[in-house]
Amino acid sequence: MMKKYVYAFEEGNKEMKASLGGKGANLAEMKKIGLPVPDGFTITTEACNQYYVDGKKISENIQGQILDYLEKLEAKTGKLLGDPKDPLLVSVRSGAVFSMPGMMDTVLNLGLNDASVEGLAILTDNRRFAYDCYRRFIQMFGDVVLEIPKYKFDRVLDGQKEKMGYELDTQLNVEDFTHIIQEYKAIVKREKGFDFPMNPREQMMFAIEAVFNSWNNDRARVYRNYNDIPHDLGTAVNIQSMVFGNMGNTSGTGVAFTRNPSTGENVLFGEFLINAQGEDVVAGIRTPQKIDELKDVMPDVYVQFTEVADKLEAHYKDMQDIEFTVERGKLFMLQTRTGKRTAFAAVKVAVDMVESGVISKEEALLRVMPSQLDQLLHPMFDPAAIKGASPIAKGLPASPGAAYGKVFFHSEDVARHKENGDECILVRTETSPEDIEGMVAANGILTARGGMTSHAAVVARGMGKCCVAGCSEIFVDEEEKYFRVGDVIYKEGDYISLDGNSGNVYSGKLDTVEVALTGDFALLLSWADDVRTLGVRTNADTPRDAETAVKFGAEGIGLCRTEHMFFSEERILNVRRMILSGTLQERLEALKLLLPYQREDFIGIFKALGERPVTIRLLDPPLHEFVPHKEDEIRNLAEDLGQTYEFVKYKIDNLMEINPMLGHRGCRLAMTYPEIYEMQCIAIFEAAVHCKKDLGIDVKPEIMIPLVGHMKEFTELKGLVKKVADQIIGETDLTLDYKIGTMIEVPRAALIADEIAKEAEFFSFGTNDLTQMTLGFSRDDSGKFLPEYLKKNVFEKDPFETIDQNGVGKLVKMACELGRNTNATLKLGICGEHGGDPKSIDFCHKTGLNYVSCSPYRVPIARLAAAHAAIKNK
Amino acid sequence: MMKKYVYAFEEGNKEMKASLGGKGANLAEMKKIGLPVPDGFTITTEACNQYYVDGKKISENIQGQILDYLEKLEAKTGKLLGDPKDPLLVSVRSGAVFSMPGMMDTVLNLGLNDASVEGLAILTDNRRFAYDCYRRFIQMFGDVVLEIPKYKFDRVLDGQKEKMGYELDTQLNVEDFTHIIQEYKAIVKREKGFDFPMNPREQMMFAIEAVFNSWNNDRARVYRNYNDIPHDLGTAVNIQSMVFGNMGNTSGTGVAFTRNPSTGENVLFGEFLINAQGEDVVAGIRTPQKIDELKDVMPDVYVQFTEVADKLEAHYKDMQDIEFTVERGKLFMLQTRTGKRTAFAAVKVAVDMVESGVISKEEALLRVMPSQLDQLLHPMFDPAAIKGASPIAKGLPASPGAAYGKVFFHSEDVARHKENGDECILVRTETSPEDIEGMVAANGILTARGGMTSHAAVVARGMGKCCVAGCSEIFVDEEEKYFRVGDVIYKEGDYISLDGNSGNVYSGKLDTVEVALTGDFALLLSWADDVRTLGVRTNADTPRDAETAVKFGAEGIGLCRTEHMFFSEERILNVRRMILSGTLQERLEALKLLLPYQREDFIGIFKALGERPVTIRLLDPPLHEFVPHKEDEIRNLAEDLGQTYEFVKYKIDNLMEINPMLGHRGCRLAMTYPEIYEMQCIAIFEAAVHCKKDLGIDVKPEIMIPLVGHMKEFTELKGLVKKVADQIIGETDLTLDYKIGTMIEVPRAALIADEIAKEAEFFSFGTNDLTQMTLGFSRDDSGKFLPEYLKKNVFEKDPFETIDQNGVGKLVKMACELGRNTNATLKLGICGEHGGDPKSIDFCHKTGLNYVSCSPYRVPIARLAAAHAAIKNK
Repeated sequence: MMKKYVYAFEEGNKEMKASLGGKGANLAEMKKIGLPVPDGFTITTEACNQYYVDGKKISENIQGQILDYLEKLEAKTGKLLGDPKDPLLVSVRSGAVFSMPGMMDTVLNLGLNDASVEGLAILTDNRRFAYDCYRRFIQMFGDVVLEIPKYKFDRVLDGQKEKMGYELDTQLNVEDFTHIIQEYKAIVKREKGFDFPMNPREQMMFAIEAVFNSWNNDRARVYRNYNDIPHDLGTAVNIQSMVFGNMGNTSGTGVAFTRNPSTGENVLFGEFLINAQGEDVVAGIRTPQKIDELKDVMPDVYVQFTEVADKLEAHYKDMQDIEFTVERGKLFMLQTRTGKRTAFAAVKVAVDMVESGVISKEEALLRVMPSQLDQLLHPMFDPAAIKGASPIAKGLPASPGAAYGKVFFHSEDVARHKENGDECILVRTETSPEDIEGMVAANGILTARGGMTSHAAVVARGMGKCCVAGCSEIFVDEEEKYFRVGDVIYKEGDYISLDGNSGNVYSGKLDTVEVALTGDFALLLSWADDVRTLGVRTNADTPRDAETAVKFGAEGIGLCRTEHMFFSEERILNVRRMILSGTLQERLEALKLLLPYQREDFIGIFKALGERPVTIRLLDPPLHEFVPHKEDEIRNLAEDLGQTYEFVKYKIDNLMEINPMLGHRGCRLAMTYPEIYEMQCIAIFEAAVHCKKDLGIDVKPEIMIPLVGHMKEFTELKGLVKKVADQIIGETDLTLDYKIGTMIEVPRAALIADEIAKEAEFFSFGTNDLTQMTLGFSRDDSGKFLPEYLKKNVFEKDPFETIDQNGVGKLVKMACELGRNTNATLKLGICGEHGGDPKSIDFCHKTGLNYVSCSPYRVPIARLAAAHAAIKNK
Repeated sequence: MMKKYVYAFEEGNKEMKASLGGKGANLAEMKKIGLPVPDGFTITTEACNQYYVDGKKISENIQGQILDYLEKLEAKTGKLLGDPKDPLLVSVRSGAVFSMPGMMDTVLNLGLNDASVEGLAILTDNRRFAYDCYRRFIQMFGDVVLEIPKYKFDRVLDGQKEKMGYELDTQLNVEDFTHIIQEYKAIVKREKGFDFPMNPREQMMFAIEAVFNSWNNDRARVYRNYNDIPHDLGTAVNIQSMVFGNMGNTSGTGVAFTRNPSTGENVLFGEFLINAQGEDVVAGIRTPQKIDELKDVMPDVYVQFTEVADKLEAHYKDMQDIEFTVERGKLFMLQTRTGKRTAFAAVKVAVDMVESGVISKEEALLRVMPSQLDQLLHPMFDPAAIKGASPIAKGLPASPGAAYGKVFFHSEDVARHKENGDECILVRTETSPEDIEGMVAANGILTARGGMTSHAAVVARGMGKCCVAGCSEIFVDEEEKYFRVGDVIYKEGDYISLDGNSGNVYSGKLDTVEVALTGDFALLLSWADDVRTLGVRTNADTPRDAETAVKFGAEGIGLCRTEHMFFSEERILNVRRMILSGTLQERLEALKLLLPYQREDFIGIFKALGERPVTIRLLDPPLHEFVPHKEDEIRNLAEDLGQTYEFVKYKIDNLMEINPMLGHRGCRLAMTYPEIYEMQCIAIFEAAVHCKKDLGIDVKPEIMIPLVGHMKEFTELKGLVKKVADQIIGETDLTLDYKIGTMIEVPRAALIADEIAKEAEFFSFGTNDLTQMTLGFSRDDSGKFLPEYLKKNVFEKDPFETIDQNGVGKLVKMACELGRNTNATLKLGICGEHGGDPKSIDFCHKTGLNYVSCSPYRVPIARLAAAHAAIKNK
């Protein structure tokens, strides 16, 4: 039997997304439940993949199936594609499995040619409309299918308007269009070397190929990388008979969400344009009317539409994002899909739907993407700061949050400055898919045109990025790289601040404040806690971070880096004295001066954590990180230490390393200078004893020895820790529950985990370093090739963000199995940055770790991700 | 039943080495076969280990067993230890499982005290002898057991001689000795706070503890590290009734080898001293007589001794190293052991013994240590150079080979300068166990005193290191750091050259030449080839190296590094032009200029190898290794390239990396600049086609892609290689047998070896980098902690010399198994420096690799080591 590559809408349903793509499956589903959907058919994603297998050719078999279905469509509509009398016109749209707004290309009015345009004119009794359609079609086809720069067409249109002295497009008449169409055709001939195709079936095949090709364009790849969508899914193509929203004032087109996608409020939310085609709304070229106003303009259609919207939400049990067109008073549904929403809205909708009994708690949890929560955890502007500042302009609050940064006007400028560590705001008249890279890199987006469903707004909300759209008070000149508000000019590099919740734009940098974890958000996370089995700890080095993390639900500290404590001003001199000392005696004296500071650090952290466990990593970085390297700083240090410049310089030079990542650091420092760890342990255990004895806190320190690669390192240093601990505890009548364990971050440690586990009470996977060593990628240097690797899809995701399961993950699994084999009670955790990454958290759950540890602001994300993992891997 | 910790000599035999140590087992064996051995007993190595387990205490149980056996010895000899009338005196000697010359401590004449010295005087009718023995005993006991610096005793002796106006020790009389003994006792009291022990049993326990302790002294640990002896074997202690070689002119002592240990010649070889104790020969204080002369001095003893020597060699089936003492005309055997020998002698003795039917070929192979062969493969002095030079002095040719270097007079100076990359010669009046570290680090050793069996000679031969000993023409002043020959002074840092084959010492550096692989050596290696299953290839980057390796028996090239070819003067500018080019076009042009050079390189190497396989690694190092970093060099380069200094400096700075080991190198270069590998492949395949077509050589190139960590790297670059290869071969009517494989050097590659093996035809383990990444040790930086790690025995051996079997080895094994699982015909090799290390070769054999690859001069070593592995793992 021959593989089926094409389905009529009435043959499909919403479960067939993998084949039909999201759009196609939902068109079929709407058809199935009796909604008014123009007829059409879908070419499957398998056809797209086969197209690539066949060397970017649509096979004869597939072409045959397409033409069969076209004939069926012609039969159903009683029209023939491109018939000069009564032409069937179709739209050709992409439809991937996961919704990718604006990323794929669309062609409308396909089937028009020099003959059928006349048929359309007669049929609609509107010659001007027909010729407008035709010139739009050539323009869109030229741009999207033939890849001719759009401005070449725009220039002709603008030229004609200028020549005739018109101000508006609506002033153009049939003769103008006839002339414009001739010019357009000439452009095609000049640019491509062939005539604009007149054969409608040829037009269609061209367009289908263009959709297939667009699956692999750079914008699509960037979007998929950002959104974790695999690159090998392919896209479907939907061929649908056209309906026209631009047939005069009884026609129109619109987009609506069944609830407010910014706030989650349960009210219809959307926009429409009278006498317009769908793309006009999304492109943000004209500013549309609010959906409520449809009530006044077309009362019947409005009622019908609200009923359809309710039906769709009830049917899909989730907020829907709907596109519709009204052709001469008749409503047609062109698309429905799950509506993208802000994290805030996602939480509210999910909780509301549980409370109204529509979905279960587990479903609610799965409705909110952990990575989205980031948005709720980003600081907002300090109300005090806002009070003092008056906005320079106000736009639409298109995506919530607060952001400040230097303004840039081109995607590549944002990307470049972001790489240099600048905070950036992308400012554009309007955004288009070409701007994706800059939108990813920017802290916030400001546009002069476009509504709440414009490209900028939709994409920014998807990314959880602050966006102010349609800010018509500003004038943007991308060429000259400035924007103007009244008389005031803001140049590239000037700071502005955006408030995505109010739509306000401020000059300069505004202070931000933290957000609290309350209401629906707190409720949802409490459901997550009920479901998850993986513990969530935090990486925190200061009492302040520790308190924040506890507020966000951290169940302990998974990584407290002790070296950060060494850098503060009153300590660094003694740290340097210790490092540069020539004798053990000198070193001991310098360490003695550091001891009280370290003890205070630990008391602060223990207090913040209470009875929760605190994993403290003993000194890890190479010593040269603590000493200055510039001549004047070295001179100052020499003076402070009472040494000669030459001596200090010599000592510092001796500390330098070729590959510091693989050098004298971690437990290797303690193997050569055990007195450093000894001081740290004294500080830890004196602090612990103080907290327990004097403050009544039953602290639970867990001492972690970093960079262990050999059993003897661990046993020797465990001995040292134990000796100090037992001595300090022994001087009291307390018992103190403490553990000694190690980081698994050197590949060798994973390989001998069975040995180490005999002595260690816990392992914490330091997957940052483990990734560097297992892959042989220096994080500091991989910028030279990693972007190329991601582009070439060698790695699907940056292995420093999401754990490389086939490589690093294999070592982690091996270490877990080996470790538990010899020590069944071994506690396993992860403290690399992967501990806050949802995909990696799923891996940790499956691998059987006891907990993940991440930065304080990612704790809620990890709680939700751990719940997702528990539900998905049931 | 109680564990037995003590054995009388008659209870043991030579198979009991593990318990009795080498010396004890052989004393027992000699007793067994009826040789004249003074009675005694051995305290086992288990007792030594128990001593450490018990916290450096001899348990009561063990003390009890020792005293039991002492009583039995007293019964047997009819004397009591320290009896004032007729005292039993004993020697206390260490005896480890593996012979460790001079490393462990010995005490003679134990049992003497103020009372028994009188008994000895009466018994021997020689009062002076008795008091000399007593003062020697206190001195030795003070030095070895009580660890009082020897010079303190020497000062008393020298003082007495000076006071009395004596020149020789023999002038000292009983009164002098009585005074000296008093002074010696005062030293002990002053230094230790207690009286010199008078109780003989207490003396014995003190001495046994000292032997046990000496097992763990620094010298012993260094020796064991150098000789691959595990640190946990422990030492036995031998208590033996004394015989005296210093009882006048009918007494004496000597050492002899049953064959010549330098040349292997089958003649008795040794030395003796009349009226001396054994230590006098070994210590090199007096220059002894040749063993042949014993024939004249004591004809009967000589005949008896030659018979004993023959009997021992026949019994042990190997060359023996024998110690004997003659007491008043009666011969006693004090030790026999397998004689240490030069590599040259080892080969000759082994081959001779096979030819005389004493041992099998396999036994012969096992008799020669692979690491020893190094000695035979080191360059000798160029005869032309020697002809032109006249020696400044001549000593004994104590250990063959040739060496030059800067002279240093202290072990620690040699070690330090060696670390800085200097070639060093250790020059001493005589060496002692304290000098081991310097002897390990030196290229050669020169001593002013001592014979062919002196400490310097024995240890140097064991190490395969050139040594000229007993060079009495030179005067060495260690304090002032110079040596003098006549009027000429050689200061620290001056160059000299040593010829260990002739004993000549030259001023300055002499040119060296290569040695050939002929005669017995070639024969032995041919036997090795018959036995081994592991292939032996070489790492060679030039036709010259390749030719040398083939001469030494290499069966192919396992690693040809293509980057070394980039450095020569006429190419480096184009290499730099390529690296610094701003556009692909510029890069292509620079590469085009390099192509003919690379092609010539490969033609040269293919010619040298003939039909043997040649594994060529494509460019590996980071590009910054090819560009200059000093300002003036950058200026010159900018001028040569016609660029500004600022531009070139900017480009070079951009290439710098924080951790170059983990940076943009290996196949990552080709993922970003495929044109580099493309040029290299064109060069390789054009060279191959030329060799096959025009020269009729059926070349077998194997293209190796370095630093692969991800499957997609391999598939992409394999595709590139194949495209070039197929195109170039396709233009001819030839078939060409080529392979494409990868280095496994990134840990991740080992983890996904099953995937890679689906596409790769061979793996070559790059264990240098694999060790760096698996252990997290930068080879460039590990000098800061690795010495400490070796000292603390964290790693038994430097993991860059001998493969770390538990860590890196585990990854190698895993990769082999995974790889063969998906590709049964996968060829497996190793090309890290471990490929030339015998222990690692044994690992490679066991792991089932197809071949090892090592530097040309290590090829014979690898052939023998592979044979050892095959025999031992049968």
